[in-house]
Amino acid sequence: MDANPILAETIRGNWIENRHRGAYVVVDADGTIIASAGDIDRAIFPRSAIKSMQALPIFARHAEDQFHHTSEELALACASHHGEADHVATANGLLTRIGLSAADLECGAHAPTNAAARDALRASGLEASPLHNNCSGKHSGMLSVALAMGVPTAGYVGREHEVQKAVRAAVEAVIGEQLTEGKCGTDGCSIPTFAAPLRAFAFGFARMATGKGISPELATAATRLFDAATSHPHLVAGTGHADTRLMDVFGGRLMQKVGAEGVQCGAIRDKGWGYALKCDDGNIAASQAMLAGMLLKLADPNDEQRAVLESLAHQTIKSVRGAEVGELRSAVA
Amino acid sequence: MDANPILAETIRGNWIENRHRGAYVVVDADGTIIASAGDIDRAIFPRSAIKSMQALPIFARHAEDQFHHTSEELALACASHHGEADHVATANGLLTRIGLSAADLECGAHAPTNAAARDALRASGLEASPLHNNCSGKHSGMLSVALAMGVPTAGYVGREHEVQKAVRAAVEAVIGEQLTEGKCGTDGCSIPTFAAPLRAFAFGFARMATGKGISPELATAATRLFDAATSHPHLVAGTGHADTRLMDVFGGRLMQKVGAEGVQCGAIRDKGWGYALKCDDGNIAASQAMLAGMLLKLADPNDEQRAVLESLAHQTIKSVRGAEVGELRSAVA
Repeated sequence: MDANPILAETIRGNWIENRHRGAYVVVDADGTIIASAGDIDRAIFPRSAIKSMQALPIFARHAEDQFHHTSEELALACASHHGEADHVATANGLLTRIGLSAADLECGAHAPTNAAARDALRASGLEASPLHNNCSGKHSGMLSVALAMGVPTAGYVGREHEVQKAVRAAVEAVIGEQLTEGKCGTDGCSIPTFAAPLRAFAFGFARMATGKGISPELATAATRLFDAATSHPHLVAGTGHADTRLMDVFGGRLMQKVGAEGVQCGAIRDKGWGYALKCDDGNIAASQAMLAGMLLKLADPNDEQRAVLESLAHQTIKSVRGAEVGELRSAVA
Repeated sequence: MDANPILAETIRGNWIENRHRGAYVVVDADGTIIASAGDIDRAIFPRSAIKSMQALPIFARHAEDQFHHTSEELALACASHHGEADHVATANGLLTRIGLSAADLECGAHAPTNAAARDALRASGLEASPLHNNCSGKHSGMLSVALAMGVPTAGYVGREHEVQKAVRAAVEAVIGEQLTEGKCGTDGCSIPTFAAPLRAFAFGFARMATGKGISPELATAATRLFDAATSHPHLVAGTGHADTRLMDVFGGRLMQKVGAEGVQCGAIRDKGWGYALKCDDGNIAASQAMLAGMLLKLADPNDEQRAVLESLAHQTIKSVRGAEVGELRSAVA
């Protein structure tokens, strides 16, 4: 198998220091490839990049009919949030309304990703709670699905739990591939993550963006989720994060989500294209540079959008004293 | 140019998630290659992995004659330390004895690498100082060289300063290559870093380990520095770090030093072999897995040494709740 191409690299002074390989694919809802690089048939773990797919059972299993999720709660279900006040409040709000609490979350607790939120929590003397976990919105949504399905909430993260079966079925329905135990792992937040070909995830995002090739119910759910995420970019990530900045500047045109270990998935909604990208070595910053290089080519950015993309396609590396000493840059051709 | 081979990979569940490519070479002091993988002629930035080479002017420029550096101070000159109490005290001790202070350090300030030291500093309400910078030992040593040379200490980090010229000359002398402005950058601590072929750094470590092919003065200096580093492994890195653990368990047999962006350099001293390794994508943990894979093959470890190497060659990946969900492992053949 050939190596994937170098899609990002770092320069220090006048010499290349690091090389990041990867693959990406942009596809329409018919499966026609718009652009690609590298091995797009290799199965990759999408991790959190497909939280919007994993949120589909909120509609498909009628939790939304019963609990009337707000647009903010739907955005947070698609999020890897930074544990800032609005993130914690939104997750807690849904849990309270459905009669549950942070104690029902099975994602584990970690300190807020956002530095100011982390410092504030530390200063308060309180411990991090599962509400601060970047996945607490997704998990709160899954708990609402369990209630709507009338199954026990305990153990909802397990591979054999009805909630995870519903999540798996929804992902399979949109990506058009069967997921298999033979390519399965456990995500950081304890739910299953299934590997599938990179191109399948791009295809799924194209179908969610257009509603083509999926049931009307899934199409409606996808639109609600993408509308929620793109309407509340801060809830999907947090202050200063690339996903938040990109969705902010692209208005509703771009659905964008990072996944752990250098995955980027989303849709250029007005074009009806889905995309998926994986940095082979898992470097997030490099995957963001690759993503920006890809979107600069394909997303028809206006000047303001281009400026944000360029800042991600050319990330300054500084010395401890703050001098510019290098750059992490896109090498997308 | 062919891609370097995959030398480390991460597994999640039962599927490969990340791939890390790289190159390594083990060489004797005659330049005979003992083992290698990948492109060992590619020029790489050695970063902090060659601090022991950069410390040679402490002897070559007679700073040691004048200031009688302790073994601890020599070890710290070779270190990327973690800002723990002994690290800060050792750097401060040398500075005080030579009539200087933290204010003369031009490395910049950053919080201690060690989490407990960082928390303690935060609890004290004090700001991080340049003494906490992982490079403060190297910089203190460089300041002693400036004094011994009778040149101004201010600006000692600059490429044209006599101290950096002396450092460059010493590195060139041991690696047997001319360094060039055409392959030069600025390190995180503001001093120049020159790229040179991976094999040249391995060759330099073999010559420092054996004294072969270099002047008697450099050979003596190299022995003093390697003895200092291997006698004080905690001063070269810090609590729990791979370099400290490895040098601890190997006694004096192994000189080992990490460099930023996935570089590993050192010497298997009893064999007279030097080595250099670079992870293409700059991932430190992956470079440690590669290093361990290489040393398992070549360093004739006893059971205790093997146990430490195996723990680096197979690094557990855990979920937020602490369950084992994967592994970062060496793929060195």
